[in-house]
Amino acid sequence: MYSKKIQEKLKELGIEIGDRVRVKSRGEVCEGILMPKQELGDPNAIVVKLSNGYAIGLNFEGAGLEKLEGHRKIGFKSSDEKLKHVAGKPTVSIISTGGTVASRVDYTTGGVNASYSASDLVKAVPELGEFNIDSKFLFGMMSEDMRAEHWKEMAKAVFKELKTDARGVVVTHGTDTMHFSTAALSFMLKDLNKPVVFTGSQRSSDRGSSDSFMNMLCAVNFASKSDVAEVSLLMHGSSSDDFCYAHRGTKVRKLHTSKRDAFKSVNDEPLAKIFPNGKIEMINSNYRKRSEREVSLDDKLEEKVALIKTYPGMDPEIFDFYLGKKFKGIVIEGTGLGHVPTAIEKYSLIPRIKEATKAGIPVCITSQCIFGRVHEFVYANLRKEYEAGAVFCGDMLSEVAYVKLMHVLAHSKDLEEAKKLMLTNIAGELNERTPVFE
Amino acid sequence: MYSKKIQEKLKELGIEIGDRVRVKSRGEVCEGILMPKQELGDPNAIVVKLSNGYAIGLNFEGAGLEKLEGHRKIGFKSSDEKLKHVAGKPTVSIISTGGTVASRVDYTTGGVNASYSASDLVKAVPELGEFNIDSKFLFGMMSEDMRAEHWKEMAKAVFKELKTDARGVVVTHGTDTMHFSTAALSFMLKDLNKPVVFTGSQRSSDRGSSDSFMNMLCAVNFASKSDVAEVSLLMHGSSSDDFCYAHRGTKVRKLHTSKRDAFKSVNDEPLAKIFPNGKIEMINSNYRKRSEREVSLDDKLEEKVALIKTYPGMDPEIFDFYLGKKFKGIVIEGTGLGHVPTAIEKYSLIPRIKEATKAGIPVCITSQCIFGRVHEFVYANLRKEYEAGAVFCGDMLSEVAYVKLMHVLAHSKDLEEAKKLMLTNIAGELNERTPVFE
Repeated sequence: MYSKKIQEKLKELGIEIGDRVRVKSRGEVCEGILMPKQELGDPNAIVVKLSNGYAIGLNFEGAGLEKLEGHRKIGFKSSDEKLKHVAGKPTVSIISTGGTVASRVDYTTGGVNASYSASDLVKAVPELGEFNIDSKFLFGMMSEDMRAEHWKEMAKAVFKELKTDARGVVVTHGTDTMHFSTAALSFMLKDLNKPVVFTGSQRSSDRGSSDSFMNMLCAVNFASKSDVAEVSLLMHGSSSDDFCYAHRGTKVRKLHTSKRDAFKSVNDEPLAKIFPNGKIEMINSNYRKRSEREVSLDDKLEEKVALIKTYPGMDPEIFDFYLGKKFKGIVIEGTGLGHVPTAIEKYSLIPRIKEATKAGIPVCITSQCIFGRVHEFVYANLRKEYEAGAVFCGDMLSEVAYVKLMHVLAHSKDLEEAKKLMLTNIAGELNERTPVFE
Repeated sequence: MYSKKIQEKLKELGIEIGDRVRVKSRGEVCEGILMPKQELGDPNAIVVKLSNGYAIGLNFEGAGLEKLEGHRKIGFKSSDEKLKHVAGKPTVSIISTGGTVASRVDYTTGGVNASYSASDLVKAVPELGEFNIDSKFLFGMMSEDMRAEHWKEMAKAVFKELKTDARGVVVTHGTDTMHFSTAALSFMLKDLNKPVVFTGSQRSSDRGSSDSFMNMLCAVNFASKSDVAEVSLLMHGSSSDDFCYAHRGTKVRKLHTSKRDAFKSVNDEPLAKIFPNGKIEMINSNYRKRSEREVSLDDKLEEKVALIKTYPGMDPEIFDFYLGKKFKGIVIEGTGLGHVPTAIEKYSLIPRIKEATKAGIPVCITSQCIFGRVHEFVYANLRKEYEAGAVFCGDMLSEVAYVKLMHVLAHSKDLEEAKKLMLTNIAGELNERTPVFE
């Protein structure tokens, strides 16, 4: 709902949600359909959906607002609308958290941040008719705003669905930080017994080239039919609409701003190739299998963890900033095999790593190279970091080490135990030591 | 040279550089050849080269030191030793700055951080006999310790060589931050008229699989024979020893910790494929050609620039840290198309971007996706960043935007002019606007 002030103004002008309007704001003139307020949008903005399919927020203060001819019905479905189940069909739960994929429903309802319901979904993707779909609305958020608190809510919601008779759970999510969320849920859902499949889209369904429908279709198929009881991230596997990859949730990263196949498995093979006709080809034979295990929820996270990327000329006092703010853990995304500025005393991070370690704060090392693994012994400078107390995180992604450290520190206050846990594989995030140089 | 204290102790024990020694330091016992002090190494460490080829620094304080049987002659060549030029052969200048590639010479002289001379080089790579080589020693540094001051020294040294009759200049460099250095020199050498080719190696020549020799050979060939008057970065193009790629210095990044083909061109084609037999196949037709232009040196850099990587849960006060320290420019490595935390007021970077912009501090946006381009208009949240004053840096790499902002701010104190310069292509770092979604 818009603020009282905006509502009053709209009433005064006789404008309703769904009306075609012209808005003059800060020198710009826009025409489009007046949309409902965005879930977490600027309270002073009104949202207008342009003819090119984009919805934009326009500052309401001092804006000129005019009603035009035309009205479009904006549908709102109840978040938990339950489609009638058909006996014999497998059930898949879908939890919606927002992002571009949620604007898929834009196509049918006109609402960019609206929840989409099971009936919308089945309507848009007729192939989903072979499943019973339980659709839950959790958030209508863009993923750049997600934080630990949202991962906890997601983990709870997924956990709840895992307890039903659903074959698996699909989570729709903005793509920007989806790989952080899959890592978080990988650590939070212990003894996972069914597939949990995150998916999203790079282009909303307003565009002919949208990847939403195929990703959704492949995700539901993978959740229902595969025996991979892990948190995975499923997106296009190529820039064509031919197949998707399911990546392990702790071994994947967004590596392109806009391509449909933006996500790549890092230091691991994708789990499987999934075709829009529902066919699944396993690629990675090393995965946790579907079972009758009892899944448990472990959603504790220590939020005072920092991720620092090193670069030539970086100010080493950034370390003091975090220590001063009583951060409990630090991940350093170093260069190459895990290097940090070392030899020039004034700029060296070595004394800072020592200081943090002495204070019981684990300092974990990853590489900004993304691919490959860090190693503490190849060069003398790496050995110095190690001797200062740094934990070299093998082939773990920086993003995953960051999330894992939040998880680990919520479970252990002891430095040595925390260090040990960081180097123990929990959810496929750490491959066994392989030679640094293949 | 070691410190006076260490020198005295060595003298007392009758130990000379090159002697085989046993060192007991902090519970560890090492045997190997005593090496000369590392250029920028810990002043309290002695350097011992182990039988596996690695040289390690061992703390001298309280160390037990013992002379063993055996001595190996450690050669030191003068840094500017000039090989006699042979008339008719093309000349290539080589400037050594350190890194793993410098340990190539290890093989002949035993010194890990020693300079290598032209004669060493020609001895190790007989195919280089077709060139006159001028070899200069600049630094013996690992690249994780390089900073703006080193880029300036490098630019000066290269500029000097460009003024000679050399066909081109090769710079050998540690790989970790080589792409920062190539970006820096791309901006600092104006109207470049000859090839400037950076190369390094991922494995020292102690290893059978070393890439040093082939990279060096291809780099000298490319510097001499190609007509690409740009700063390029040349490394293995595949994990076999079949060819190298020369990448544009502003469009390349290290993307693997240890593979020989760790560097990849990003958002651009490699410039050329270079074979060890000297053959060059151009790939990219869009490059600056060799000419009779007068090159000039423009080595001013504003060092108070920060690079901030965003992540879910980041502390937005990191911005205040840099503003408080009077930083002059900030690059934000955002998510996806350039997103930063936006919607939740408490964590939003939007007010910080506004504040910095008001204070005349440019805030530049890149993407941690690495591949692709940022864009200010696709989503409402991006538009908010743009309206707050952020400069969206198109398809520029974060590392390059960081170096470019240092360059730009040294030339313009005016915010609008600096913003404009950031969005003007100077050295191939910014491709013209292409559609965000191909």
